[in-house]
Amino acid sequence: MKKLAVIAFGGNALLRGGQRGTYREQMQNVTETCKSLLPFLKNDYNLVIGHGNGPQVGNVMLQNEAGNQVFNVPDMPIDFCVAETQGLIGFMIEMGLDKVFAAEGMRRNVVTLVTQVIVDKDDPMFQNPTKPVGPYYTKEQAEQYAAETGAVYKEDPKGRGWRKVVASPKPIGIQNIDIVKRLANEGNIVVTVGGGGIPVIEKKGCLCGVEAVIDKDLASAMTAIQIQADEFYILTDVPKVYINFRKENEQALNTITVAEAKKHLADGQFTEGSMAPKIRAAILFVEATGHQAIITEATSLTDPTCGTRIVP
Amino acid sequence: MKKLAVIAFGGNALLRGGQRGTYREQMQNVTETCKSLLPFLKNDYNLVIGHGNGPQVGNVMLQNEAGNQVFNVPDMPIDFCVAETQGLIGFMIEMGLDKVFAAEGMRRNVVTLVTQVIVDKDDPMFQNPTKPVGPYYTKEQAEQYAAETGAVYKEDPKGRGWRKVVASPKPIGIQNIDIVKRLANEGNIVVTVGGGGIPVIEKKGCLCGVEAVIDKDLASAMTAIQIQADEFYILTDVPKVYINFRKENEQALNTITVAEAKKHLADGQFTEGSMAPKIRAAILFVEATGHQAIITEATSLTDPTCGTRIVP
Repeated sequence: MKKLAVIAFGGNALLRGGQRGTYREQMQNVTETCKSLLPFLKNDYNLVIGHGNGPQVGNVMLQNEAGNQVFNVPDMPIDFCVAETQGLIGFMIEMGLDKVFAAEGMRRNVVTLVTQVIVDKDDPMFQNPTKPVGPYYTKEQAEQYAAETGAVYKEDPKGRGWRKVVASPKPIGIQNIDIVKRLANEGNIVVTVGGGGIPVIEKKGCLCGVEAVIDKDLASAMTAIQIQADEFYILTDVPKVYINFRKENEQALNTITVAEAKKHLADGQFTEGSMAPKIRAAILFVEATGHQAIITEATSLTDPTCGTRIVP
Repeated sequence: MKKLAVIAFGGNALLRGGQRGTYREQMQNVTETCKSLLPFLKNDYNLVIGHGNGPQVGNVMLQNEAGNQVFNVPDMPIDFCVAETQGLIGFMIEMGLDKVFAAEGMRRNVVTLVTQVIVDKDDPMFQNPTKPVGPYYTKEQAEQYAAETGAVYKEDPKGRGWRKVVASPKPIGIQNIDIVKRLANEGNIVVTVGGGGIPVIEKKGCLCGVEAVIDKDLASAMTAIQIQADEFYILTDVPKVYINFRKENEQALNTITVAEAKKHLADGQFTEGSMAPKIRAAILFVEATGHQAIITEATSLTDPTCGTRIVP
């Protein structure tokens, strides 16, 4: 049986710092990231790709706000915006992979699934929304929108204005996960849980969207666990995980156990919103499966000793 | 073996005349359209759903234009916008169906695939783009954009300004059609070829997006043919097809042969951009399969004699 790997593309797989995010820039970035998957493709792995959508859903939300202002187009809730980015980014990844296949003379089928991810409506994070999304507003605007919609707005710590904040609840279930598993094991490259998945809660016996964002590394880890992946890769913009990051005694980590990873987390070695959620996602996978998780940058994937391995 | 039907949702499945298109309006419309599928669901049909995206992709393009103006967010080509609406509308249909299932105490799995549809780069329609898309511009703006991008702009016949026009080439292939067929025959309701599919052409051995729109009825007909559907339904906003439509001698058609349909088409009985493409899609399906195609409104589906049947 072929090896099955889940690879979570980070934000910079699609959009790099300093870029505006034109479709040409994004296509070039995504094609380069796809190229970095060649070692897997040549070694005949089965692959599932998860991906972030931070810059893209941010742009869609700005477009929604502007469309409302300029053309009176009704803006859509964030779960609908996430669904839009799943279509958008899935299409870009499909084209990126196709370019790589053509250059290498190989053929693999790629399937992108629009994916709902279930969260618990009683998740405590809903009581404490922390994830800023969408445009910046003045204090007065924010107060008005909060009164109109019940949404929560908080002041940006860097003084750029007020922004809506939404919860980042834990994923508890992935729609169509059995189909993901089967399609992947048949050799299709499956793109799923884009942007962490479209967040949905159960309400009156059916699933409906909710304004929230799900961590894409956690959703990818859960995908990897449920499809019984052999390997789980989290791609980021550094070659390895570091302790004492950017200090004099900075140290790259080659292999750490789950116990060591938990200790470093508790010691505050990893930044929230950046490396910490990746470490937590890696721990989740390793504890559930006994397999290793690897955190690294895309360009390092050709090196079999790349990245930081989190082991049982 | 269960019967397999392809159902093409028309524009008003999601957005009705006079509505702004808030997510609540769209969710209510789509849920009502999904309810109209109950006769199929109760009779244990396997189902594939195709859908239009006219109002939604129009809104996304306005949001792109406005986002560029207000926040300097780069706008995306129309194929990327179509991909966005596949995610958006697929998610809405999934939620709408789930509401219907919950009310009826049934369970069916729904899968939405992001779907590329291949068109011929030498399709003559590329020489004669006719489909207006996106915002209205002044003549000066249109001339400037045409010079910058090579896109074609034409004056709106109703004097509302100048708009980009894109080609509407014929679909010649549907990505992942074998997966659509298999998933549908296993009982999953599959949502595919949204908005007629993301238009792609073959270039240097790989598929890449192209600025065009594909007729959703034609793409749905091709889907129905390739998955060997037993029945093909095109949902619209009138109960039947008419000849001498809105004239004194208006006549509703119950059953017409392909030959009769072709004659009425040649006689100009059907409006281009409205009923004519539906008739052509129906003819395509009936000629390829020998089965009948039905054009009707969603609410009439409970009546087994509903609509206009196009037969061999």
